[in-house]
Amino acid sequence: MKITDIRTHSVKLEGAISNAVVSFDDHDVSLVAIVSDVMRGGRPVVGFGFNSIGRYAQRGILLDRIRPRILAATPDSLLGEDGCQLDPAKVYAVAMKNEKPGGHGDRASAVGALELAVWDLNAKLDDRPAYAAIAEACGRSAKLVPVPVYAAGGYYYGTGSGKTLGDELQGYLDLGFDAFKIKVGGATESEDLARIEEALKLARSGAHLAVDANGRFDLPGGLAFGRRIAPYNLRWYEEIGDPLDYALNQAMAHCYDGPIATGENLFSLQDVRNLLNFGGMRSGRDIFQMDAGLSYGLTEYFRILELLESRGFDRAQVFPHGGHLINLHIVAGLGLGGCEAYPGVFKPFGGYPDSCPVTDGTVQPSDAPGFGLEEKPEIAAAIRRLMA
Amino acid sequence: MKITDIRTHSVKLEGAISNAVVSFDDHDVSLVAIVSDVMRGGRPVVGFGFNSIGRYAQRGILLDRIRPRILAATPDSLLGEDGCQLDPAKVYAVAMKNEKPGGHGDRASAVGALELAVWDLNAKLDDRPAYAAIAEACGRSAKLVPVPVYAAGGYYYGTGSGKTLGDELQGYLDLGFDAFKIKVGGATESEDLARIEEALKLARSGAHLAVDANGRFDLPGGLAFGRRIAPYNLRWYEEIGDPLDYALNQAMAHCYDGPIATGENLFSLQDVRNLLNFGGMRSGRDIFQMDAGLSYGLTEYFRILELLESRGFDRAQVFPHGGHLINLHIVAGLGLGGCEAYPGVFKPFGGYPDSCPVTDGTVQPSDAPGFGLEEKPEIAAAIRRLMA
Repeated sequence: MKITDIRTHSVKLEGAISNAVVSFDDHDVSLVAIVSDVMRGGRPVVGFGFNSIGRYAQRGILLDRIRPRILAATPDSLLGEDGCQLDPAKVYAVAMKNEKPGGHGDRASAVGALELAVWDLNAKLDDRPAYAAIAEACGRSAKLVPVPVYAAGGYYYGTGSGKTLGDELQGYLDLGFDAFKIKVGGATESEDLARIEEALKLARSGAHLAVDANGRFDLPGGLAFGRRIAPYNLRWYEEIGDPLDYALNQAMAHCYDGPIATGENLFSLQDVRNLLNFGGMRSGRDIFQMDAGLSYGLTEYFRILELLESRGFDRAQVFPHGGHLINLHIVAGLGLGGCEAYPGVFKPFGGYPDSCPVTDGTVQPSDAPGFGLEEKPEIAAAIRRLMA
Repeated sequence: MKITDIRTHSVKLEGAISNAVVSFDDHDVSLVAIVSDVMRGGRPVVGFGFNSIGRYAQRGILLDRIRPRILAATPDSLLGEDGCQLDPAKVYAVAMKNEKPGGHGDRASAVGALELAVWDLNAKLDDRPAYAAIAEACGRSAKLVPVPVYAAGGYYYGTGSGKTLGDELQGYLDLGFDAFKIKVGGATESEDLARIEEALKLARSGAHLAVDANGRFDLPGGLAFGRRIAPYNLRWYEEIGDPLDYALNQAMAHCYDGPIATGENLFSLQDVRNLLNFGGMRSGRDIFQMDAGLSYGLTEYFRILELLESRGFDRAQVFPHGGHLINLHIVAGLGLGGCEAYPGVFKPFGGYPDSCPVTDGTVQPSDAPGFGLEEKPEIAAAIRRLMA
């Protein structure tokens, strides 16, 4: 088999919202198609992937650097041992040809979208869901276990907005969620504490409520807020300061007894290694949120998981950032701790299709081939535009 | 004043060469123009910048994210206190609007090219060279002192290539250089040691010869090679391992007594802070090679220098990566340790124009307004194409 084309569109996110640091008004995502020469029902089998949410589409890097490298490679050099499928690790290596080490930012998103499209293509060639292909690649059982999922959101509402945090969280309960994550760090301490108290009424206990500062705090601010929230025994305290400030994370881990969550803005194995070497992360307690679509794809993600386990961490501590169907398959296939969801926002990529309902705080992928992106009508529409 | 347009071209590098890790065959650089509404001689004053060498042009990020943000900003919101010039820090902040923290890679190059074009524009508006504007911005004297410069290269030549390392280095001596940097890590240890011996014959002493492993070694390899080269008392041992592997750098600094050089692949203040916190860099000994064009421009670079000095390092320890006219102005304006040059390669951006001859191992910027990029004929040609 060989790749006959690689296509990409930048797809704007709908349902714009803001966290403590950025607005998602102008954010977009790269939808990537890998077109194979394998024909099924008179049409080529195509793999689709995208680079998760929050770091923008990567049209330039994909079209100027990565696509030419892949299309210039000898087709056989990209294949696995059986000669019938692409080898994701080989595609990753060719995509990175002549790229210098370090500087893991936008490039990691561009490669991530492409590498995930390889997984979608391979699973479709086998006519099976991606989680099964992912599980098999890691020597794991493909038996499906419901994936714990929590509703992320908990936005700030102005006094005249006609909506409250309680309304928002009640909506999540009505959708089948039983755990939430809310924003902190974007208001005064007393306002944030009042929001936590309001959320706890619906969450029933701190074990069902996490807070996310989106990197807003410096160390004194993070420590002060940590002292105030410690009595609530929250599920976790997320992205307290700059995501690369390992010294801050280490100090937080020394002083805040509850779980700390971070990693969604670490985009490579080496960045995660630095977090483990210097960030004070605690085995059996803290939460890792790396996102394959933002960090070169699953090949790199497998290496990251291997590193975590070699340092005594458990994959149950891993909850990928993103809240979308690709990461649901990854969590299910790899047996990670769970998923997030952002109900109603980050469309078309955010959220799960009707074939994956949320029940009792869990969700599971359907049996559609690949990541099943075609089952989500708004992604299916973007796919039709890309392939038109 | 206001910005009327921002233009960019991706300009291919000529004179392709390889180091131990990458080939520069397909590398390009973003040339950026900021067009102002200030007219001189019937034409608008235009600032030009580029994003240094080695990390590719950033067409997508510049055109899709950064240009729209700058052009959408209220013109006055980008001006300095006098209202007559752009404020580089304000342009930087607007360029980063809605960008998440972390992930300092390609984005840092895109912003760097733009921010440097602001400095070129401002200096042209004052009809003075950029080094003087840079010096003044930091409260330094604009008096010009010749800048130490070394010739970087020292490539590998096949036995049938008809050229030797000695030929190459003799060519640099003939051009006025008195110090070199050569590649290591791309051949066997004995071959690399023989190359060092060959280079020392022309360099006269280890103090005039640095070696660059381009991140090739793991820790055992870096340590082993370090033990072998220690007796030569080389000027420095550069980029030994992965540029983000602070633990490796720390171990090297504990074990290798000579100067270590790194930083060209660190693209933000936070990454440099991590190097200082965890990398074992030694005051008065080791060398920092951060490059403003790859790391968000001079606004971020000033913050990096301030951090270095606050931790007891000296700006004489700073030798920016790049080997081009923009960094010559930066080194001269800020009183840094010195510059590199890559004679004959990385054209059109590499190297210095005839108005900046190399003499006795030093070079200095001319009095052309701004960075004087127009004095280098091959850059001038690229500028004409961009503005056509």
